[in-house]
Amino acid sequence: MKAFIKVMIFCFISVLVFGAAYAKFAKPEDAIKYRKAVMYLIAQHFKPMGAAVQGKADYDKESFSKDSDVVAMLSSLPWEASMEPGSDKGDTTLSPAVFKNKAEFMQAAKSFEGDSAKLAEIAKGGDLGAIKAQFGVVAQNCKSCHQQFRSK
Amino acid sequence: MKAFIKVMIFCFISVLVFGAAYAKFAKPEDAIKYRKAVMYLIAQHFKPMGAAVQGKADYDKESFSKDSDVVAMLSSLPWEASMEPGSDKGDTTLSPAVFKNKAEFMQAAKSFEGDSAKLAEIAKGGDLGAIKAQFGVVAQNCKSCHQQFRSK
Repeated sequence: MKAFIKVMIFCFISVLVFGAAYAKFAKPEDAIKYRKAVMYLIAQHFKPMGAAVQGKADYDKESFSKDSDVVAMLSSLPWEASMEPGSDKGDTTLSPAVFKNKAEFMQAAKSFEGDSAKLAEIAKGGDLGAIKAQFGVVAQNCKSCHQQFRSK
Repeated sequence: MKAFIKVMIFCFISVLVFGAAYAKFAKPEDAIKYRKAVMYLIAQHFKPMGAAVQGKADYDKESFSKDSDVVAMLSSLPWEASMEPGSDKGDTTLSPAVFKNKAEFMQAAKSFEGDSAKLAEIAKGGDLGAIKAQFGVVAQNCKSCHQQFRSK
């Protein structure tokens, strides 16, 4: 039974990894540029949410909701580019650990996707307490994945 | 009646311009970096669709549909950053014409958004003839807006 579950998990991860193949990269530099663009945009939309959650900026339901939608829709994009062989070298902070722990990396990626989608859903309701809690979950996703898979 | 229509159009454009305000820019360089990131991603997902439409690559319904979804979701993002005062100077190809013809620029932007959404919808059906036609419409959107609002 344990073996069966392992096989199922392997298949699930494989589908996630190979099913997400919607941008092709001619060379590792292209993958680096691609994921940097996505990560930059995620950060740009994450920052104003952080400011609102921390009380450093006024909470505006509509703009928070829009930012969370953008983050959720961008959240699935960087992973194929992160699996591009050789793209841990050059102008990048991607850690070689990604290639050593592909399944774990993709699990972290999928947690971020799921939690971002949940944040976007909660943000539509406008309950700031619930939003703060889920924002914390997403921020923790970022942090733990960066700790493990991003080089300083 | 004509005046009323003009007022309605003005209001409509204003809502589009100011309603899309979901990324804030501390300085013009940030807006430039932001819109470049979006445009780069749009291009990365547009290219494989172009190759499929032109017969240079095999048409794969699923990957084409995913690319068209990504382009559609990115299509609303670059415009606020393009309206950022002063961001037609520096490392950018944004033409000052954007600031002289804001309403026209936003109309072009909204056409691109609408036509991209339509392409994503058509792509789900998998009718290559219809896809090719709508891809042409979107490509024409890019071309005409770049001609008018992008400096060489």
